[in-house]
Amino acid sequence: MENKVIQERLAALRAAMKREGIDFYMMPTADFHNSEYVNDYFKVREYFCNFSGSNGTLLVWQEGAGLWTDGRYFIQAEKELTGTTVELFRMQDEGVPTILEFLQQNMQQGQTLGFDGRVVPMSQGMNYEKKLEGVSFAYEQDLAEAIWTDRPKFPAGKVTVLDEKLAGMSFEEKREEVMKKAGEEGADSLLLTKLDDIMWLFNIRGCDVECNPVAMSYAWLTKEATVLFIQGQALGQEVKAYLAEKQVEVREYGTAVDYLKNLPSGRKVLMDKRHCSYALYKTVAEKQAVVEKNNPTELLKAVKNPTELANMEQIYLKDSVALTKFIYWLKTNIGKQEITEISAADKLEALRREIPECIDLSFPSISAYGANAAMMHYEPTPESYAVLKPEGLYLIDSGGQYLGGTTDVTRTIALGPVTEEQKLHYTMVAAAMLQMTNACFLYGCTGRNLDILARQPIWNMALDYKCGTGHGVGYILNVHEGPQSLRWRYVEGQTESLIEAGMDVTNEPGIYIEGSHGIRIENVMVAENDTKNEYGQFMHFKTLTWVLIDMEAIEMKHLNEVQKGYLAAYQQEVCRKISPYLTPEEAEWLKKATEC
Amino acid sequence: MENKVIQERLAALRAAMKREGIDFYMMPTADFHNSEYVNDYFKVREYFCNFSGSNGTLLVWQEGAGLWTDGRYFIQAEKELTGTTVELFRMQDEGVPTILEFLQQNMQQGQTLGFDGRVVPMSQGMNYEKKLEGVSFAYEQDLAEAIWTDRPKFPAGKVTVLDEKLAGMSFEEKREEVMKKAGEEGADSLLLTKLDDIMWLFNIRGCDVECNPVAMSYAWLTKEATVLFIQGQALGQEVKAYLAEKQVEVREYGTAVDYLKNLPSGRKVLMDKRHCSYALYKTVAEKQAVVEKNNPTELLKAVKNPTELANMEQIYLKDSVALTKFIYWLKTNIGKQEITEISAADKLEALRREIPECIDLSFPSISAYGANAAMMHYEPTPESYAVLKPEGLYLIDSGGQYLGGTTDVTRTIALGPVTEEQKLHYTMVAAAMLQMTNACFLYGCTGRNLDILARQPIWNMALDYKCGTGHGVGYILNVHEGPQSLRWRYVEGQTESLIEAGMDVTNEPGIYIEGSHGIRIENVMVAENDTKNEYGQFMHFKTLTWVLIDMEAIEMKHLNEVQKGYLAAYQQEVCRKISPYLTPEEAEWLKKATEC
Repeated sequence: MENKVIQERLAALRAAMKREGIDFYMMPTADFHNSEYVNDYFKVREYFCNFSGSNGTLLVWQEGAGLWTDGRYFIQAEKELTGTTVELFRMQDEGVPTILEFLQQNMQQGQTLGFDGRVVPMSQGMNYEKKLEGVSFAYEQDLAEAIWTDRPKFPAGKVTVLDEKLAGMSFEEKREEVMKKAGEEGADSLLLTKLDDIMWLFNIRGCDVECNPVAMSYAWLTKEATVLFIQGQALGQEVKAYLAEKQVEVREYGTAVDYLKNLPSGRKVLMDKRHCSYALYKTVAEKQAVVEKNNPTELLKAVKNPTELANMEQIYLKDSVALTKFIYWLKTNIGKQEITEISAADKLEALRREIPECIDLSFPSISAYGANAAMMHYEPTPESYAVLKPEGLYLIDSGGQYLGGTTDVTRTIALGPVTEEQKLHYTMVAAAMLQMTNACFLYGCTGRNLDILARQPIWNMALDYKCGTGHGVGYILNVHEGPQSLRWRYVEGQTESLIEAGMDVTNEPGIYIEGSHGIRIENVMVAENDTKNEYGQFMHFKTLTWVLIDMEAIEMKHLNEVQKGYLAAYQQEVCRKISPYLTPEEAEWLKKATEC
Repeated sequence: MENKVIQERLAALRAAMKREGIDFYMMPTADFHNSEYVNDYFKVREYFCNFSGSNGTLLVWQEGAGLWTDGRYFIQAEKELTGTTVELFRMQDEGVPTILEFLQQNMQQGQTLGFDGRVVPMSQGMNYEKKLEGVSFAYEQDLAEAIWTDRPKFPAGKVTVLDEKLAGMSFEEKREEVMKKAGEEGADSLLLTKLDDIMWLFNIRGCDVECNPVAMSYAWLTKEATVLFIQGQALGQEVKAYLAEKQVEVREYGTAVDYLKNLPSGRKVLMDKRHCSYALYKTVAEKQAVVEKNNPTELLKAVKNPTELANMEQIYLKDSVALTKFIYWLKTNIGKQEITEISAADKLEALRREIPECIDLSFPSISAYGANAAMMHYEPTPESYAVLKPEGLYLIDSGGQYLGGTTDVTRTIALGPVTEEQKLHYTMVAAAMLQMTNACFLYGCTGRNLDILARQPIWNMALDYKCGTGHGVGYILNVHEGPQSLRWRYVEGQTESLIEAGMDVTNEPGIYIEGSHGIRIENVMVAENDTKNEYGQFMHFKTLTWVLIDMEAIEMKHLNEVQKGYLAAYQQEVCRKISPYLTPEEAEWLKKATEC
């Protein structure tokens, strides 16, 4: 089936490229701040190829077009690209070139690569400069501007102040820590461009990106001054007063580039090449010395403070109660009333919104029945969704934004009879998740040391999940945050983050069988110190998520006794912690449902 | 107790330093080729501080002296440094500076750091140049020369040719591969300085380093020519004829520096900064462009070819038979005759030497009874050794050099009653080794991904072994070789080697309790390809070592059912493979001894 709309958009783009003398035009998935999720205003790549996943780069040239995305999205991308003429490049698959390799192979000397320099990170731009000799860059234009006539408005949602009782640390304390770290890196000033970093530092929140409580902004910090570039229309009286009290100089968002251009030279500016845009880097580097280091905010933000941890523990419990009630509802109503992927997600959202601290979802729910769940980041739409039947497996990956924390949890639920293969897969995913839960390790480990604890039961079956086992989670902020992660692949030159006490991380192994089923079980855990002795500081994880594992999809014979022990301990704790918040009927059901 | 001899040597060194204007003098453990084990001629560090371990750097200044060594040697170093006035710096312990950090903290602007530039790798020298601003280097003198009057002679043992039937690949084939890789790295020539690399490439062997069948040499390779710098007195007619036939230009070992100095400029020389000496680097870099890359020999040598693998399998079986016979002998004779750490090691050596292919040991045996085994690299001497008693644990870590392979194996043996704690520790070490043995993983893993499989049962007890889990093993070459290893610690910027099919690696977890006991169980394994599917290339290890685990030190109740399964499978295979080569009495004993 032809997708004429996309083909026409591509034709318009190619015409614009010809006019501008651009041979290859690249469209990544990013806003001006390298946010992981982007506001609709920035969805240029989707506009030109129809692929709606959260990660992908579209490359267009006169004779063709290619979309690069990662393993989570292969199935989804294949579907969405149908009829668009855009070819799918499966990242990390054997023999598939990276975009850079593709450009090296296909661009001629003297040709021009075009991209909007505001949506490409400086690291990538600098790397391309080095690796694409003889190629010119046209990075000061957004070719979509003229073609995308019904483009959504630039976002400017209301900004709020996060109470210090929730933040656990004042802006002044955070600023001092951040500037100390910047100084240790040899910088006298700091340009913050990543939105969650800025929100965290100033103890403010916005709503400019779906599910991410962030506001479009830049921050410029020196020893003497703090400048926050933010849209004036987004600030109410309360925020203005708060920022004034904190001696923050507020300037209009759109003036940041000019301000930086006009700074006196001689500064040593710390910039994070992973997040700062190539265009902004070019502006600053013209007159200032650039210290390329990770944002000092990143690690400080990732290690949750005691106030944050205490709030998270409470909020995760409430969130777990909501999900438990949802599972009960689903199990008792399936087959009796029509439930769709959308109405199921809505039901869970309603249960979450009953929690007084709830402000939003933390990401669009992945509500996926049967084969849909094999698409790791599937999202039902009013045009395309499945009706749940009293058989097989249903996966829901969802989370809430609460005044007290950001949650992220996945459960896969048997709606009725499931096949032996599905039981085997479900049981092994549960074993994988529980093995990671029970990790005991020395301080000094990174996610690459631990990942195999989860992956082992799945590798043993010659299966794999094509993503990491876990990622950091923000606090009333973005659901994906670094630098911590649980992954296994070695990337030469890539810095790894040690697992620090207080870091939270998801634990979400899975099995995805195209056309059949998808299983993922996801908890959030916090790293904690354990015994310290002559061998070092031992550590373990403390679980925050307490939602039953579905015994109707477990086949005990596939578990060894250690795994059985882990399962029983977890289920028992779920029952103990959650029951007090349930109705008598729900509590009785949970008691039975958690028996191993 | 004072060690006057060492104190006098240090005084003489300090006097020489004063004369030469050297403020700090550094003595690492290396020969001119950065060999891991060094010929006695090079044991300057031991001469000046009495510490005899295989890794350590001595730093001397007017007011003091310090020895840096790693966790394997803490206990041994403490003992050997007694009375020498040399302070022990426990590498990687919290708060202990590295040598470089120590120099940064203690050296003043304008001071001079002295070292023999021939025994310091270029990477280290270059790093020190960068990090020690304002400090001068005096690297063209060996201060030991004048003080160490009874220094052993420079080694020049007989060189032999390794038959192509054993090597599996001709010199010409290897040279072609090596030069191809060098070309891919942008080099037109290659300076090889690491002795096992040179031996491997030329299919020759020597005997200039204890247990390492290598000859003092350098190799210089260009597209047109191959020059081998080697001591003429070490070459017999057969080797000369072989090298002549292979069109290798043979030059005297001592002329290498002059030859390199006098090369016409304009070369792009590949040099490995980890192994090439700082002095040699300075010589070459004066006139040539240096391409700093890993020796292309390294990876080619580490991935064993089919001939090598087939020979190794045979030789490891024979070696395992010798060790099995030794254990039988020990178990049946302990308490009946005097057996010492030395006579036990001699007995095993004699059994090995009965194997027709045996040429030497592959390293000095670690034969350690009781608390001595807590010193990871303990070696009994005629002056200091223990007598074995019919109780407790005895550890022997040993190996042979055979025409067919190099072996490395450790077993810890119960000589009679052992404590409950010792049984627990032994059982968990066995579990650790077996868990690694049974690893199943995707291609792309490095040792850092897998290490936790072995370490987990030990970390679970809040214990650790302060070394890697495994290292590569040479083929009729050095018992430790890279780049493969099984380790967990993250070192920023350190390159990791992917585990390739055909790479061999030891698997040797342990538990070491100072003053009480030491346990290590070590097998050698080879990585092999398994299923290949849409998820990638799955891999597993094939074990080469088949020597029983001592059931008299195993307490089954500490093992989970998976570990029990691994143990039973291994023991059964030991019995099946080894029995045919035993006497009826030995075979009967083995049958019982391997029952779980």
